[in-house]
Amino acid sequence: MLRVGVIGCGYWGPNLVRVFMECDGSTVTAICDTVSDRWKRICARYPTIEGHGDARELIARDDVDLVAVATPVDSHYVLAREAIDRGKHVLVEKPFTDDSEDAEELIDRARRKGVLLAVDHTFLFTPAVEKIKALIQAGEIGRVNYVDSVRINLGLIQEEINVVWDLAPHDLSIVDYVIGRSPERVVATGSCHTIGGQADVAYINLDFGDGLIANFHVNWLSPVKVRRMIFGGDRKMIIFDDLSNSEKIRVYDSGAEPIANTSGANGKRLRRVDYRIGDIWTPHIPLREALSAEAQHLVSAVESSTPLRVDGEAGLRVVRVLEACDRSLREDGARVVLAHPAAAGAEPVLAGAS
Amino acid sequence: MLRVGVIGCGYWGPNLVRVFMECDGSTVTAICDTVSDRWKRICARYPTIEGHGDARELIARDDVDLVAVATPVDSHYVLAREAIDRGKHVLVEKPFTDDSEDAEELIDRARRKGVLLAVDHTFLFTPAVEKIKALIQAGEIGRVNYVDSVRINLGLIQEEINVVWDLAPHDLSIVDYVIGRSPERVVATGSCHTIGGQADVAYINLDFGDGLIANFHVNWLSPVKVRRMIFGGDRKMIIFDDLSNSEKIRVYDSGAEPIANTSGANGKRLRRVDYRIGDIWTPHIPLREALSAEAQHLVSAVESSTPLRVDGEAGLRVVRVLEACDRSLREDGARVVLAHPAAAGAEPVLAGAS
Amino acid sequence: MLRVGVIGCGYWGPNLVRVFMECDGSTVTAICDTVSDRWKRICARYPTIEGHGDARELIARDDVDLVAVATPVDSHYVLAREAIDRGKHVLVEKPFTDDSEDAEELIDRARRKGVLLAVDHTFLFTPAVEKIKALIQAGEIGRVNYVDSVRINLGLIQEEINVVWDLAPHDLSIVDYVIGRSPERVVATGSCHTIGGQADVAYINLDFGDGLIANFHVNWLSPVKVRRMIFGGDRKMIIFDDLSNSEKIRVYDSGAEPIANTSGANGKRLRRVDYRIGDIWTPHIPLREALSAEAQHLVSAVESSTPLRVDGEAGLRVVRVLEACDRSLREDGARVVLAHPAAAGAEPVLAGAS
Amino acid sequence: MLRVGVIGCGYWGPNLVRVFMECDGSTVTAICDTVSDRWKRICARYPTIEGHGDARELIARDDVDLVAVATPVDSHYVLAREAIDRGKHVLVEKPFTDDSEDAEELIDRARRKGVLLAVDHTFLFTPAVEKIKALIQAGEIGRVNYVDSVRINLGLIQEEINVVWDLAPHDLSIVDYVIGRSPERVVATGSCHTIGGQADVAYINLDFGDGLIANFHVNWLSPVKVRRMIFGGDRKMIIFDDLSNSEKIRVYDSGAEPIANTSGANGKRLRRVDYRIGDIWTPHIPLREALSAEAQHLVSAVESSTPLRVDGEAGLRVVRVLEACDRSLREDGARVVLAHPAAAGAEPVLAGAS
Repeated sequence: MLRVGVIGCGYWGPNLVRVFMECDGSTVTAICDTVSDRWKRICARYPTIEGHGDARELIARDDVDLVAVATPVDSHYVLAREAIDRGKHVLVEKPFTDDSEDAEELIDRARRKGVLLAVDHTFLFTPAVEKIKALIQAGEIGRVNYVDSVRINLGLIQEEINVVWDLAPHDLSIVDYVIGRSPERVVATGSCHTIGGQADVAYINLDFGDGLIANFHVNWLSPVKVRRMIFGGDRKMIIFDDLSNSEKIRVYDSGAEPIANTSGANGKRLRRVDYRIGDIWTPHIPLREALSAEAQHLVSAVESSTPLRVDGEAGLRVVRVLEACDRSLREDGARVVLAHPAAAGAEPVLAGAS
Repeated sequence: MLRVGVIGCGYWGPNLVRVFMECDGSTVTAICDTVSDRWKRICARYPTIEGHGDARELIARDDVDLVAVATPVDSHYVLAREAIDRGKHVLVEKPFTDDSEDAEELIDRARRKGVLLAVDHTFLFTPAVEKIKALIQAGEIGRVNYVDSVRINLGLIQEEINVVWDLAPHDLSIVDYVIGRSPERVVATGSCHTIGGQADVAYINLDFGDGLIANFHVNWLSPVKVRRMIFGGDRKMIIFDDLSNSEKIRVYDSGAEPIANTSGANGKRLRRVDYRIGDIWTPHIPLREALSAEAQHLVSAVESSTPLRVDGEAGLRVVRVLEACDRSLREDGARVVLAHPAAAGAEPVLAGAS
Repeated sequence: MLRVGVIGCGYWGPNLVRVFMECDGSTVTAICDTVSDRWKRICARYPTIEGHGDARELIARDDVDLVAVATPVDSHYVLAREAIDRGKHVLVEKPFTDDSEDAEELIDRARRKGVLLAVDHTFLFTPAVEKIKALIQAGEIGRVNYVDSVRINLGLIQEEINVVWDLAPHDLSIVDYVIGRSPERVVATGSCHTIGGQADVAYINLDFGDGLIANFHVNWLSPVKVRRMIFGGDRKMIIFDDLSNSEKIRVYDSGAEPIANTSGANGKRLRRVDYRIGDIWTPHIPLREALSAEAQHLVSAVESSTPLRVDGEAGLRVVRVLEACDRSLREDGARVVLAHPAAAGAEPVLAGAS
Repeated sequence: MLRVGVIGCGYWGPNLVRVFMECDGSTVTAICDTVSDRWKRICARYPTIEGHGDARELIARDDVDLVAVATPVDSHYVLAREAIDRGKHVLVEKPFTDDSEDAEELIDRARRKGVLLAVDHTFLFTPAVEKIKALIQAGEIGRVNYVDSVRINLGLIQEEINVVWDLAPHDLSIVDYVIGRSPERVVATGSCHTIGGQADVAYINLDFGDGLIANFHVNWLSPVKVRRMIFGGDRKMIIFDDLSNSEKIRVYDSGAEPIANTSGANGKRLRRVDYRIGDIWTPHIPLREALSAEAQHLVSAVESSTPLRVDGEAGLRVVRVLEACDRSLREDGARVVLAHPAAAGAEPVLAGAS
C-alpha cells in the first residue's frame, strides 16, 4: 500500500487526494496547505487523513512514501528536493520546475537516492493521447510533417507566470510523448494586454530539424474555447479535439501525393503534387479519468519498478522548451537553438550567438 | 461605359469577365490567354468579346480603357507597366507583384500617367469585412489587442510560389484594411513536405509595435478546412468565420477586466484581472458577391475619381510583408524589421542587422 | 430548518441528498432504500444521516418534515399518500404518478392535510428555461406558433416504462411552464425494436386548439445526442440547445411577414408573405445547478407559503398528457382529445368517440 | 441525340435546360413559358434554342423527343398527357401530379403509347443517397428500425400548396428509393400561422407495418436550416446531413443489443438490453451534380430501354402519401390507411372507416 502525502490543497491538490484514495494500492495519509481552511475542508470529507500547515512536517512523516507537490511552480524545487533527501518518492505538478538546472539537480538527486521522481503530465494518460501515440507508432499516418496546436479560452490570468507556462505544458508534454524526440529550435512571440507585463497571447514554433515543425497557440483572451491539435502525416492526418465528448479523435485518410509526371507544351506550371480526399474514421475512445490512470501507473512503478511514462526527464524536456520560449519572447521572437537533449545541462542559446 | 480587357483566362479571369459584363457602367471588349482554348470558351459564351493570344494586342486596343491582369504573379509587373504606359487604367490580381520595387515603380508610373492602378483585394468588398471595419472604427470592441487568422485546407500545391504568397494575401489585405496601419516586425516559420522546397505550412507573426500582434496560419496540408479570424479587443471580440453561411460574424461581449484591488494576508498571489462573459451578437450579414461590388467600385473610381479602397499602395504594403516573410522563412524564423511605410522604397532588414 | 427524508438512493436520490444537505435552510435526517448497500454508501459520506430499509420507518420519523420520493414511478402514489397522511410535505420525482387519478387523489389529500405537494420538474429551475419563459412573457418573440422538441440519444432502455414516460416529462414540463396552458389533442406514434413491446422511438404531437402545435421526438436509439427545442414565434424565434455549454439560448430576429400586396398581370401566384432574416442574439446564461435552486425554492415555499412553481397540478398535467400518449400509441396514432384541465378528473377520450 | 423541350422557365426550368445542353447524347431544341421574359433570357444565352409562349406549340414540334414539364403542379397532368398523346417521352417535375388518379392515368397512357414517363426525383441521383442505398442493401446497418427526417428552414411560403407538398417529396422519394417498400399508415399533423390556411409546419408519420416507422418534420418557419435524415438499423445507424460539404454521411457502429440474462434477488428491474458505442465511419462522398446524372440516366433509358430509377410509379407512390397527408391534416391527425400499392387505384381510407 503506497502511502501518499499531498502538499498544496488549492485547485489541483484535492483531485490528487481523491484519486490516491480511490486507487487500489494507495492511500493518502497526510495533506498540507498554508491556508488551513483548505486542508480542513478535505479532512472533513476524509477523516483518516491528517492535515498540516507546514510542508516539512508532512515530508518528515514516516507514514508517507510518496510526496505529491501541487503548489505554485516556484516552490516545486525546494519541496521536491527535501522530499527526495528524506527518501520519499515524489510526484511534481506541471510545470516541473521554473528552472531547468533545478530540474536536472532533482533528477540527479532522485537517481542517487534511488527514489522515483515523476511529473504530473496528466494528459499522457488520457485514452485519446494514448490512441494517438499508438496510431502514429503503428505507422498509421506515415511520417509526421507538422503538429498544429490551439489551446485558447478566456482564462485565469495569472501574475506570476505567463500564458506559455500556464497552458503550453499540456501540449508540449503531449508532443514530447507522441513524437518521442526533442525540437532543435524555438521561436516564440507574444504580447501582454492586461497586467504585469506577462504575455497573455503567445505563439510557439518548434523546429525539429528534420522537416517536422510544431506550432502552439496559447491564449488567455479568446472569446471562443478551442483545444485542438492536428497531427499532419504524409499518409493520413489526425485531429484531436479535446472539447468533443464523442469524437475526440478523427483520422483523415487524406493527404498530398505526387502525381504521375505529365509533360506540357512548354513544360511550365505543371503540378506534380495532388491531394487526395478519402474517408474519415472516428475511433471510439472510452471514457476514463486520466488522473486515476496516472495514479495507478505510479503505484505500479513503485511496486514493480516498471519504467515511468512521466519521469523527471520528461518534466525537464518541457521546462527546457518553456525556458527557450521565455528567452525568445523577451527578445521579440528571436530564434533560440536548444542544446541537444543528450548534452544535459547545456543552456539554450540565441541563434544569433550560435 | 468603362471598356475592360482581361488578360489571363485561367481560374480567376472568367470571373472578372462575368462581373465586368454584368456591372452597370462597364463591359468587356477583349480577353487574352496564351492557351487559345481558354479564351475561345469564354468568347463562345459572350460573342461580343474578342479573344487574343498575345497580351500586347489586347493592351494596344483603343477600345480598352482598363486592363485587368489575372496572370501568374511573375508576369504582373511587365503587363501592368505596359498597360500603364499605354495610358490604360489597370487592375492587378493579388499578390500585386512579386517584388516590392516593381510595385513602387508601377505606383510611380501610374501617378505620372494619371491612370488608376488597383489591386484585386476582393475580400475588402465582402459585407463581412466591411462590417468588421465599421465595428472596429466605431470603437465597438475597443482597442484591438490581437488578430489571429487561420486559413487552412487541403490546397492546390503550387511549385512557383509558397503557401504564404498563395493564401496570406487574403488575410494580410484584410488586416491592412481593418487595422489601418502597418506592422513593424515580421517573423515567419514554415516547412516544406511535398516538392520544390516551397513551404506548404507556414506561420506569420506581425508585431505592430504598440501591443498589437497578428498571427496567421496558412496551410495547404490540413485535412480540415478552417477560415477564421479573431479580432480581440479590450472591450469585446469579433470572430469572423468565413465558412459559415449564416453566422459569418459574431461579436462577443466578453473580455478581461481589472478587478477591484483586494488585499490578502500575505499580499501574494491575488489576481487583479478577471474575465467577463457576456452576450454574443450575430449581426445579419447580407449576401452579396464581393467581386461585383469591387467592379462597381472601380467603375465609380474611374468615373468620378473617388478614392480607391484597393490602390497600388495597398498592394505594395501586402507585398512588403510577403517579402519579409520570405526572408524570415529562408533564415528559419529570423526577425525582420519592416522599414516604416512612410519611407517608401526602404528594404526590409534583418533584425540582427538593424 | 427543513428536515428532509429521501426515499430511493439509486440514480437520482443521492443528488437530492446532496442539495438538501448543502441548501441553507434544510438538512437531510434520514434516507431509505431496499438495497442496503445504497443507503450505506451515502451514510458513510454523511455520518449524521440515518439509513432505513423500510420506507415506512422513514416516513414515521418525527424529525422528517419533507419526504422526497425518488423511487420507480409505480411506487410514487403509495409512498406519497402515506407521507401526506402522516402530515409530511412531499416532493415526488417525475413522472409524478403512473395514473392521473392517483395524482388527483394526492393533490386532494395534500390540500386537505395542508401540506405541500411538489413534483421534481428540475428543468424549470435551469437558468435557460427561466430565461425562455421571461422572454416569451415579455412578448419578445410575439405569439408562439409552434414548439419543436428533440431529445434523442442512445439511452438506457427500460422494461417498465416506454421512452415517452422516460424522456418526455422533461420537455412536457418545460412547455407546460413556458406556455402556461394545456393542449387539447394528443397524437403519439412510436415503435418498439428492442424488448418488451415498449416503444423506444416515439413522436408526440400536441394541438393547443389556437394554432399552437408542439411536437416532441423522444428516442432511445439515436446514435447522435440531440437536446434541442425551437420556440417559433411570429416575431422572433428561440432555439434552446441544452447540450451547448456556452450558447444554450439563441434568439433569432427572423420570421415570416406579410408583404405589401402587389398585383400581377394575371393575379395568380403572387406571394403575400415573405421572410426576414435578422440578427441573432445569444444572451449569456449563468451556470447554476437547477436542483439546488429547486431545493431552495421548496424551502422558501415551506417557510413562507410562497406559491410552488412545481406543484402537484403541474405533475398532474404532465401525467395526463403521458396517459393520452399511451392511449394514442396503443391505437397506432389515434387522436386523443384531452378533457379540459378545468374539468378535473375527466378521462382522455379517443377522438373517434368524442 | 435526344432532343428535349422544356416547359416552364421559372426556378427549376433553367437548370433542366443547362444539364440537357451539357449532357452527351441530348440537346435542348425548344423552351416555353407564359412569361416571355423568362424564355427570352435563356434564348439569349443559348441562341440555338427556340422559345415559345404556348406549351402546345412546343409539344407539337417534330424536333422534340422528350418534354420536360417544370411548371406548377396543377398543370402537370394536362401537359404531360398531351405530350404523351403526341408520342413524346416525358419528364415531370416533382410532385408528380396533384392527384393520384391523374398519375395512374398518365402511367397507363405512357405504357400504351410506349413512351418513357419519368418523375424528377433529383435526390435519388445524389452520390450520398446512392451510397445510403448501397450500404443498406448490403446489410451494413442491419434491419432498418426507423427513419427520422428533418427538413426545416425559413422557406418560400406558397399559397397554392402547403409545406408538405413543397418539401416532403424530397424525403419521401428518398425513403421510397432506399427502403424499397411502401407505408401502410399515415398520420400527419400541422398548423398554419401565415396566410391562406395552408400548413407551414407539419409532421408526417409513416408506419410500414413491420416495425419500421418513418417520421418527417417539414417546416417553412424555422430560423435554423436543418436537412438531416437518420436511418436507424439494428446493427448500425446512418446520419445523412445534406448541409455538410465534407461529411454528408456518417455510419455509427452503435446500437442497442441484448445482454446476457442476469438474475437478481427479486427478478425485477433488470435490464436485458444494453447499448454499444463504437467507431464512426465517414465515407468520402464524391461531388457530382445530381441533375446531370439524372439527365444522363434518362438519355440512357431512352437509348437502351434500361429501367428507370424514377418512373411514373415512383412519382405515384409519393403522391399517394402526399394525398394521405392532406387527408390526415384536414382531420387533425386522423390515421389514414394506405391501400396496398399493388391494388392500383385504391383510395386512401380513414382508419376509423377501415
